[in-house]
Amino acid sequence: VWLNGELLPRDAATVSIDDFGFLYGAACFETMRAFGGVVFRLDRHLARLNAGLDALGVTPPLASELAAVIDKTLEANSLRDARVRLTVSAGRGGGRPDLSSSTAPTVLVVAEPAPPDPGPAVLAIASQRVDRSRPLPRAKTANYLASIVALAEARHAGADDALLLHPDGDIVEAATANVFLITSGRLLTPPLAAGPLPGVTREAVLECARSLGLHAEERSLTPPQLGTVEEMLLTNSVVGVRAVSSVVDRWTGTHVPGPVTARLADAYCELVRAECGPQAQPATG
Amino acid sequence: VWLNGELLPRDAATVSIDDFGFLYGAACFETMRAFGGVVFRLDRHLARLNAGLDALGVTPPLASELAAVIDKTLEANSLRDARVRLTVSAGRGGGRPDLSSSTAPTVLVVAEPAPPDPGPAVLAIASQRVDRSRPLPRAKTANYLASIVALAEARHAGADDALLLHPDGDIVEAATANVFLITSGRLLTPPLAAGPLPGVTREAVLECARSLGLHAEERSLTPPQLGTVEEMLLTNSVVGVRAVSSVVDRWTGTHVPGPVTARLADAYCELVRAECGPQAQPATG
Repeated sequence: VWLNGELLPRDAATVSIDDFGFLYGAACFETMRAFGGVVFRLDRHLARLNAGLDALGVTPPLASELAAVIDKTLEANSLRDARVRLTVSAGRGGGRPDLSSSTAPTVLVVAEPAPPDPGPAVLAIASQRVDRSRPLPRAKTANYLASIVALAEARHAGADDALLLHPDGDIVEAATANVFLITSGRLLTPPLAAGPLPGVTREAVLECARSLGLHAEERSLTPPQLGTVEEMLLTNSVVGVRAVSSVVDRWTGTHVPGPVTARLADAYCELVRAECGPQAQPATG
Repeated sequence: VWLNGELLPRDAATVSIDDFGFLYGAACFETMRAFGGVVFRLDRHLARLNAGLDALGVTPPLASELAAVIDKTLEANSLRDARVRLTVSAGRGGGRPDLSSSTAPTVLVVAEPAPPDPGPAVLAIASQRVDRSRPLPRAKTANYLASIVALAEARHAGADDALLLHPDGDIVEAATANVFLITSGRLLTPPLAAGPLPGVTREAVLECARSLGLHAEERSLTPPQLGTVEEMLLTNSVVGVRAVSSVVDRWTGTHVPGPVTARLADAYCELVRAECGPQAQPATG
């Protein structure tokens, strides 16, 4: 892993107990996918990271430096197809909740082999509702507790991921992915105003839908409407497009992956190959 | 500081980059005040901590062990009047957002000299609204970003702390304290259902109010109602009772500390002395 200017063995990589990331979750992170040594849409990931750091009052490292550091970390691990997590925290402070006491951000890059294709996902609806506003709107921060608690609950129920709802019942996202539904042949996903993370793959899949001539719409949906849903799919940077086979007690897909999901997954693979090179092999779970 | 079973110099104390606290803010913490070597209401702090850890699926360390570790940390620093932060994170995982991959929680105790009496506080209303629901209701977690960003903003505006409001304008709390208002001689504080942290000092001050025969009520209040407010005060474990001198552009106290605030501060000092010993000297800012 790369930590604050040096490559270290993962077990030796530590941060101060006074790191604002550890104390308050004052960090932003990106989880990305490298194909053949090329990170898909690194620029979009870094744009989201920088927007979050800006809201935290942290000067983001230069994009060119981050790109070089990611390359070095991939090389040091002899990895070309990888899951890459980039974390930038507000750095080390003086033990008080005063972000201005930090002198430099903590920068961490962890690269691991890309996980195998996980196959279709089973979702469970999270018992804890999530609010509309995030601490920092549209930033992906280490204030990520609602998602990982929901994920733990879903796994305990035998599901792969959790479906997060607003207090009024609108679907927002999954704990580790954005959600798309297909109903009457139309592709629907919750609008950013509803509070899902603005996923890089979400954006790419909306582009794919447009290029396929699919009717795609950013619209809120409630679980009672699941009865009319023909297909459901998740998107995130690591897995790409992942079909959903069922939502516990609410919905079961008839053909998984369904025809629209399969077309979107193919289009997404084409897009990745166009941008990262013809050898790229995205999973299409 | 005490970290996972040993006393270490603060600069040498680090946590793994795979600590769930650093990755996702998956930690709970308590900031407490020791008077003459005795932590005020340690049992209440540990009860809140344990409830939060339980929601995180983390087995809390034994209360007796935590009490012993806090004593050792105070002794090692030759401190009797101290600010003590106890942090328990979900521990180290395997790099995935899977809390069940942790084998043991991370336990950290930091003791520092108690800060001097800060005097009355100036508040600024935070621009970012906070939601009603927390990731874990009533837990004090390291998902603390909304508060520290609001605090940074308030300090930038020349204030000491931030006043956090709901989207509908109700006052919730300050970034680092609970809020009380006095209007027509009655003491008001937002109810726990409105989402403030269930402060240990908040609870103690409500007890003081009852013992003084004051009319105390847990009720929501909006900034437009500030016009009728006679006094305002903050409570937290480190400072105790702290008078508010003004809310930027909204309210200015006429006598600070006002008579009710002064009575509450005295009663709080008495309570601390009764529980921690007659030598205890709480600040009454």
